[in-house]
Amino acid sequence: MAQAEIGLIGLGVMGSNLALNIAEKGNRIAVFNRTVEATRKFFADAGELQSQIVPCETIEEFVAAIRPPRPIIIMIKAGEAVDQQMELLKPYLEKNDIMIDAGNANFRDTMRRFDHLKDSGLTFIGMGVSGGEEGARHGPSIMVGGRQESWKRVEKVLTSIAAKYDGVPCVDWLGENGAGHFVKTIHNGIEYADMQMIAEIYGILRDGLKMGATEIGEVFGEWNRGRLNSYLIEITEKVLKAADPITGRPIVDLILDKAGQKGTGKWSVIEAQNMGVPATGIEAAVAARSISSMKDEREAAEKVLGLPNVGEFRVADKAAFLKDLESALLASKIGAYAQGFAVMSAASKEFNWNLPMPTIAKIWRAGCIIRSQFLDEITTAFTKDPDVANLIVTPAFARMVKESDGALRRVVSAAALGGLPVPALASALGYFDSYRRGRGTANVIQAQRDFFGAHGFDRIDGEDAHHGPWGSGLSA
Amino acid sequence: MAQAEIGLIGLGVMGSNLALNIAEKGNRIAVFNRTVEATRKFFADAGELQSQIVPCETIEEFVAAIRPPRPIIIMIKAGEAVDQQMELLKPYLEKNDIMIDAGNANFRDTMRRFDHLKDSGLTFIGMGVSGGEEGARHGPSIMVGGRQESWKRVEKVLTSIAAKYDGVPCVDWLGENGAGHFVKTIHNGIEYADMQMIAEIYGILRDGLKMGATEIGEVFGEWNRGRLNSYLIEITEKVLKAADPITGRPIVDLILDKAGQKGTGKWSVIEAQNMGVPATGIEAAVAARSISSMKDEREAAEKVLGLPNVGEFRVADKAAFLKDLESALLASKIGAYAQGFAVMSAASKEFNWNLPMPTIAKIWRAGCIIRSQFLDEITTAFTKDPDVANLIVTPAFARMVKESDGALRRVVSAAALGGLPVPALASALGYFDSYRRGRGTANVIQAQRDFFGAHGFDRIDGEDAHHGPWGSGLSA
Repeated sequence: MAQAEIGLIGLGVMGSNLALNIAEKGNRIAVFNRTVEATRKFFADAGELQSQIVPCETIEEFVAAIRPPRPIIIMIKAGEAVDQQMELLKPYLEKNDIMIDAGNANFRDTMRRFDHLKDSGLTFIGMGVSGGEEGARHGPSIMVGGRQESWKRVEKVLTSIAAKYDGVPCVDWLGENGAGHFVKTIHNGIEYADMQMIAEIYGILRDGLKMGATEIGEVFGEWNRGRLNSYLIEITEKVLKAADPITGRPIVDLILDKAGQKGTGKWSVIEAQNMGVPATGIEAAVAARSISSMKDEREAAEKVLGLPNVGEFRVADKAAFLKDLESALLASKIGAYAQGFAVMSAASKEFNWNLPMPTIAKIWRAGCIIRSQFLDEITTAFTKDPDVANLIVTPAFARMVKESDGALRRVVSAAALGGLPVPALASALGYFDSYRRGRGTANVIQAQRDFFGAHGFDRIDGEDAHHGPWGSGLSA
Repeated sequence: MAQAEIGLIGLGVMGSNLALNIAEKGNRIAVFNRTVEATRKFFADAGELQSQIVPCETIEEFVAAIRPPRPIIIMIKAGEAVDQQMELLKPYLEKNDIMIDAGNANFRDTMRRFDHLKDSGLTFIGMGVSGGEEGARHGPSIMVGGRQESWKRVEKVLTSIAAKYDGVPCVDWLGENGAGHFVKTIHNGIEYADMQMIAEIYGILRDGLKMGATEIGEVFGEWNRGRLNSYLIEITEKVLKAADPITGRPIVDLILDKAGQKGTGKWSVIEAQNMGVPATGIEAAVAARSISSMKDEREAAEKVLGLPNVGEFRVADKAAFLKDLESALLASKIGAYAQGFAVMSAASKEFNWNLPMPTIAKIWRAGCIIRSQFLDEITTAFTKDPDVANLIVTPAFARMVKESDGALRRVVSAAALGGLPVPALASALGYFDSYRRGRGTANVIQAQRDFFGAHGFDRIDGEDAHHGPWGSGLSA
């Protein structure tokens, strides 16, 4: 029997689906799970794909089944379990074998693991996989970080299983050590922002225009046929139109408004902070999820403060306002993506990854949760100008900002007056209006800092005055 | 000659001023500096305070000069230098001597140092000192973290040098290990937000209403006599009215609009993220400073995008709009402080500090950069209800929010339409409007997450349906 091209440890939902995807694309795969029952069940359920699968009940058997140098995907819960699995596996491996962590690892753990294996002769890949269960099964977007020669060993298999956009596979090598997991983290951060912006627009439609879930679903359905065409808009229509089997009511009206989070949004914000790059859209989204989780506090606050005392929400022309909402969503999306790419650009320098921006946009076009036509436009923009300082100054996106920021202004303004929270939309507007202004207002902040802390300042005229005419601290 | 009550190492500006303050209040102090010249110069310049100062040229001499158990303030650049200084000092100290780090340390370093000294018989205090140079010299606000018995040893000296608010000293013991430096970090985070909100209002006056610096200074001066009365508003008036000695023009118009930052704002945001507590006002302020520092990018972006295409900024009634700006600043300030205190409340649980919220507000009323009448109102609110979930649901602040949020809405709306960036003001409005709404919009986010990732959700009616009627991932 031919040796397997690749191995996979961890037959949970994601691992199983990834293994079936690999087998289906004609790659022989060895699989192993901590509990033998899961391996047996997986194999029994694999149907005609059984011929490509080598179910293994011991690590020895598993390792022997794979063609060296052995690429072994570890798809288990992120965290210490990964380190333990690596240590268990290590004694059985040979020089140049490749451990591949395909979980949602923090890239700093990935860098540590990469370094940890450095002198062992083994190599390590940190691989971000996006697309949820369905993506894993039928075509995810895959972000690979590690040595380029390790990538060469797995390129064929991964290319075969990745999602395709116009025939182009959504997988690539992005850089050394933690590059893949970092890019996956920022992908998720952007996903948080994307989802929050959708939720804010939904809130305006529900609480402002008093539209029902199905009707709002129609609006998103229409937008999905326009410039906002994307997976998240598509599923927003679907979830808004879905009926609860028990009551027949729209299911979203019965879902508790407490959003969970698993950490990648938070990591995105922390790393952006570490590098001093604004990521206000992601921050707003993470904060909104945190506030959502404080359901009891919110209910208590509504009792004390009441909903905003703003009167009825009125718009002069509903059709025009809906157009504005569509453009505002597009504009704010541009802000969030521009920030996400700026964070990656800074990280690329910080960690010497040389991250390829056009490639990142390219492999996000299909397979992953934020997949969209929009990412094809980003791909084009970065391909034309890979070293541009910010997405919003590329010609195509500058035009889009200029065409849509008026709508964003009107929507943020209407929401502010109407008592409807739009923190993520407002963050994008604040970002545009700060970033496009050559002369900002930090001169006052510098004056204050010099006044109370003698921090000094630069002058616009280059004159050599490092302190203001207030002496060193006039404060009482 | 009597032994000194306390010692101080590091005669930079802050250390010198603190030492003079200590001496002036009748406490005998031993001082030491790495370079002997600085010690000699400090002593020579100390004038009539010389009688209270013991200048020491060796560590042996310095340690011998202090009454045991010896409290020794280390006032040097934060970071590794502190660890080095501690190691140098350690061999000369005896059981129960107290090393006091009075620099702007990250509280995690303070916790590490506290633990590091645990078995040595020595103890450690991490002490946040706010008020800049002038505060150090004439009365800072002092936030003390460490063992309560270490605090008892220094209480008398620190109480004598602290700022007083209505005769009440602005210093107290806040909790074990890192409590003092953590509270100082959040103090600084709030300071970032406070300053950014002022800068945004300044921007509306300068770029919207086209007012000159001196005229804007008048406005802040008037506000300083009202509800906004505070040190930061006071110095804003002063810096806006200050003339450049070279050109005679308002100095702020000549100061470069690139704001620096030293890390405490960033730390505040990172710790808030770590605990999942929204700190969007501080985040907006940190991001604004980052964007300010990208002066070249901003100038390039203005060339590409132009300033927002919004026409002339008009207000119907300037006097009424100025009133709105004043109330908006007050409202947004409430948001930033509410968030800051919520972060401290979470940290108190996380690190078992049992932080006393009324005491924190109390010792910030004078001496520190954010000192204000407003903090006296916070003191009263937290004293009445120390375990309240959020400042904005205390009766006094709920009333203030209800009285001022309408103005904040109008200002955010006008700024959005007028192309004037108000990220921090908008963050406060988004916070209020999210936090006071019992039924939010995260139900849609939960539906999306269940759709693509089978994350599951809770129902408002308690029915046992953990997944939506979309099967596990309908995505293509």
